[in-house]
Amino acid sequence: MSKNADISRHLEEERLAGVVVHNGIAYLAGQVADDASLDTEGQTVDVLRQIDALLASLGTDKSRILSVQIFLTDIGEIGAMNRAWDAWLDPTNKPARATVEAKLAVPEWRVEMTAIAALK
Amino acid sequence: MSKNADISRHLEEERLAGVVVHNGIAYLAGQVADDASLDTEGQTVDVLRQIDALLASLGTDKSRILSVQIFLTDIGEIGAMNRAWDAWLDPTNKPARATVEAKLAVPEWRVEMTAIAALK
Amino acid sequence: MSKNADISRHLEEERLAGVVVHNGIAYLAGQVADDASLDTEGQTVDVLRQIDALLASLGTDKSRILSVQIFLTDIGEIGAMNRAWDAWLDPTNKPARATVEAKLAVPEWRVEMTAIAALK
Repeated sequence: MSKNADISRHLEEERLAGVVVHNGIAYLAGQVADDASLDTEGQTVDVLRQIDALLASLGTDKSRILSVQIFLTDIGEIGAMNRAWDAWLDPTNKPARATVEAKLAVPEWRVEMTAIAALK
Repeated sequence: MSKNADISRHLEEERLAGVVVHNGIAYLAGQVADDASLDTEGQTVDVLRQIDALLASLGTDKSRILSVQIFLTDIGEIGAMNRAWDAWLDPTNKPARATVEAKLAVPEWRVEMTAIAALK
Repeated sequence: MSKNADISRHLEEERLAGVVVHNGIAYLAGQVADDASLDTEGQTVDVLRQIDALLASLGTDKSRILSVQIFLTDIGEIGAMNRAWDAWLDPTNKPARATVEAKLAVPEWRVEMTAIAALK
């Protein structure tokens, strides 16, 4: 049992926590699609759905995301990623964002996102 | 209109905010050069100038940057990036920094930086 | 001398601080192995040892890491990195984590990690 009463860890996996909360800030692990057979747009929809669910489990939501780091396996797919992003984005609460190309841990993964969000 | 009175978003673009502020911390979006025809050193000068302007708009400055993530299209250009960095750096207030190679959203972009800074 | 009494900078190098502390949060610079001749597992052991030492110098420890960003020169080496990670990990205090491939500043470096941790 952790002795760190001021830190909470959620959605724990073998090697990481899906999200860690401290001092009102949620630090999200890299989120990837459950279905790696989807194309970049489909994977992005899934990643953003997971981020929404994860934030909801903490009682917050996408309107309180502060920053997002996006890694794309092929930066040429940024248009496909952006279609899903634009459909999901809260236009009154846009996060800071950076998007770069990087190969991911599973070759079929097309997109991975980390985020920092404020709790309510 | 956002209902999040404790979060402010600035320099908004179509898909992101250039900087988001919460609890005295500014989260900067990935900053890239306005003139993509410049070489790596020139683009870095421009990116750092933009970061300075952005921080100034929040009433803070580079002496209060906490960390910087640097993405270079060609890591072999780190020397050129560092020349601009060294000329800009406040030697009494050095940020934490990590520099890696990553392709960026526009092929001509040579360098992109994100940063986290404290407000005054 | 810095006038920013609320920010402390440690392990300063020519171009960066190894860690910057503000408001109870430590922002670590990218950590790489001292011995670049080691393989990925060996370099990871060394990087994690350095992170432990750095956190200890601030009076905190790995149980208070919030998030870790891992860059691997060859994502195919993630298994080797994970062996060192698993041996080091505090299973009751897992950080959020993202792992992607990126070339690093020195070709022999196989792994670089940044982290955000809470002070005690």
